[in-house]
Amino acid sequence: MRVGILGGGQLARMLAMAAHRIGIEPWIVDPHANAPAGRVAHHILAELDDPEMPGLLSSCDVVTAEMDHAPVGILDAVEHRVPVHPSPAAFAIAGDRFREKRFFADLGAPVAPFHLIEDERSLSRARSAVTCGARLKSRFEGYDGKGQLVVRTPEGLDAAWAELNRVPCVLEEEIDFDRELSLLAVRGGDGEIRFWDPIENHHRNGILRVSATSPADRDTPAGIAARELVSAVLERLGYVGVLAVEFFDVGGHWIVNEMACRVHNSGHATEEGAETSQFENHLRAIVGWPLGGTRSVRPTAMVNLIGSIPDPETVLKIPGARLHLYGKTPAPDRKLGHLIVPESEHAVWLGSGAVDAVRLGSEVSR
Amino acid sequence: MRVGILGGGQLARMLAMAAHRIGIEPWIVDPHANAPAGRVAHHILAELDDPEMPGLLSSCDVVTAEMDHAPVGILDAVEHRVPVHPSPAAFAIAGDRFREKRFFADLGAPVAPFHLIEDERSLSRARSAVTCGARLKSRFEGYDGKGQLVVRTPEGLDAAWAELNRVPCVLEEEIDFDRELSLLAVRGGDGEIRFWDPIENHHRNGILRVSATSPADRDTPAGIAARELVSAVLERLGYVGVLAVEFFDVGGHWIVNEMACRVHNSGHATEEGAETSQFENHLRAIVGWPLGGTRSVRPTAMVNLIGSIPDPETVLKIPGARLHLYGKTPAPDRKLGHLIVPESEHAVWLGSGAVDAVRLGSEVSR
Repeated sequence: MRVGILGGGQLARMLAMAAHRIGIEPWIVDPHANAPAGRVAHHILAELDDPEMPGLLSSCDVVTAEMDHAPVGILDAVEHRVPVHPSPAAFAIAGDRFREKRFFADLGAPVAPFHLIEDERSLSRARSAVTCGARLKSRFEGYDGKGQLVVRTPEGLDAAWAELNRVPCVLEEEIDFDRELSLLAVRGGDGEIRFWDPIENHHRNGILRVSATSPADRDTPAGIAARELVSAVLERLGYVGVLAVEFFDVGGHWIVNEMACRVHNSGHATEEGAETSQFENHLRAIVGWPLGGTRSVRPTAMVNLIGSIPDPETVLKIPGARLHLYGKTPAPDRKLGHLIVPESEHAVWLGSGAVDAVRLGSEVSR
Repeated sequence: MRVGILGGGQLARMLAMAAHRIGIEPWIVDPHANAPAGRVAHHILAELDDPEMPGLLSSCDVVTAEMDHAPVGILDAVEHRVPVHPSPAAFAIAGDRFREKRFFADLGAPVAPFHLIEDERSLSRARSAVTCGARLKSRFEGYDGKGQLVVRTPEGLDAAWAELNRVPCVLEEEIDFDRELSLLAVRGGDGEIRFWDPIENHHRNGILRVSATSPADRDTPAGIAARELVSAVLERLGYVGVLAVEFFDVGGHWIVNEMACRVHNSGHATEEGAETSQFENHLRAIVGWPLGGTRSVRPTAMVNLIGSIPDPETVLKIPGARLHLYGKTPAPDRKLGHLIVPESEHAVWLGSGAVDAVRLGSEVSR
């Protein structure tokens, strides 16, 4: 069984390691010779929009992608020769902030008010929305807070749009939320859906710093509603693989932020904390094998290592911690690895509560 | 940090995967282009007794080996350029059944009576030992029951030695044991020693079939004595890395069977069942990093997949099971992978007790 993966970053790397373990041969496509996944997978050196892609991946049994902005046209072409999961249609929605918002709104999901900006007329229409703050986001690009600007005044909106080179954008009204959560699900080839426990996330400067499994959020009314919504998304898209949906918790109500049609940074702790990791279940789903259990086997917290790699000798001394590095060259704001800390130790190391978790995130990842 | 590994089988493969995760670059040496570790490590295609070995591995920070019969002369030569852990001296003892027995006997450890056979005189001296059965084993080679013959009569001894081509052998008097156990330890570069929980093992035809973590054996008098013995072995050898010692339990007394200067098949479940796996701790030790915790986080059982690979769809349906395949071509008696089953499920699937565990071993691995 051979799986092709568009992209060779850390997500592809962790997919590749899980693949080897269960007898699947991973092939990655990445234009960089030193791509993180290249050391643990068969590496096809090519641009992601290479028109020869269908031929390059024709020996694969199924193809998937590890990035937010997968080249949908290429995936469409590949799909004529090899099954692609999740479907190109799902990537088309997730890669287009405007379609994504409308998709969720059409499903009756709570989303922040949003406005498409693509010309002077739509700009002036949106201007009235900037009364108590909003966020201007590139419609088709951006990740980890890139391609996003906070807007506080109507005049600021014009300046922000100019700064984003007047590319198509979505203006989202700012939400005053209590915390951020994500819900990861997997849908198998036979339509079976499984959920991991909800995850509480802490960002800084738009980049995820700390995630913690939160079984307590599983069966609250908001948690149940979120599962129903994500199930509806999966069914509507005929989705196969892992899907991550991010939420803002506003007084116990969860408002959809965005989705990612792939394994997700906030789910990395499933490797240590759940019966089956997001990586293995994504692979099981897309090759048509039975899904593995998603129950938490122990509560875990994850700390991203960003910008610089801490001295291994220091990190490895943290009791029960498990270090994951991606083999990347350090650079500002670059995700270089993560650390999984079991909850019992988490308590010792973080004290309790999000502030301390974020503080650890800062200390370890600077 | 770069680690060289002599051998590219499944042990090297699991070491390599653990290495990538903690930021260590694995290089393997193996003469086979399709070696299991070759897909997840930098692969030096060379015979293990290649006289150029020191040069081939000169860019490594430390060198280790994954096999029982590591080429000691080659490791000695490598050690002039790069540190080798465990030391060539340790491999020299473990690779020589006679020295190994004497080494344990010198430490005051209980071992089965044994006799060196290398000529007619030693053969006739040993003959008197075969009154209630013995086992003739090649002195310098053999693994997984290969190079071993059961001897029931004095005449049978001559025939058995002829069958082993009259190579130097050790005749071990048969022990009527209740069960087999192994104790895995790791000693760090700073001399710190840590033990995983004892493991109960079930062999058939000389090949390990099923292992189960046995925390109950940790603090019995025999378990404590075994820890003291293994500590003495580690200290005596100035050992750095993971060491496995196998025991026979005879009425609550543990008699030493043999040792392996490497990560060990019976310890594979440490990946899922312990704070830190044997693979990661071996690497941490040999590069001089702090050791990780060895506490059991959940009891586990391991079933070897031997000779043929069961249908993944069947195996992946076992609740909570984790499949590990090695990427090897099936062949009779070849270890192709293993399955980790958490104890709670273990109880459901195996009933309780060793007999059922062995039965699962038979059913799954045929």
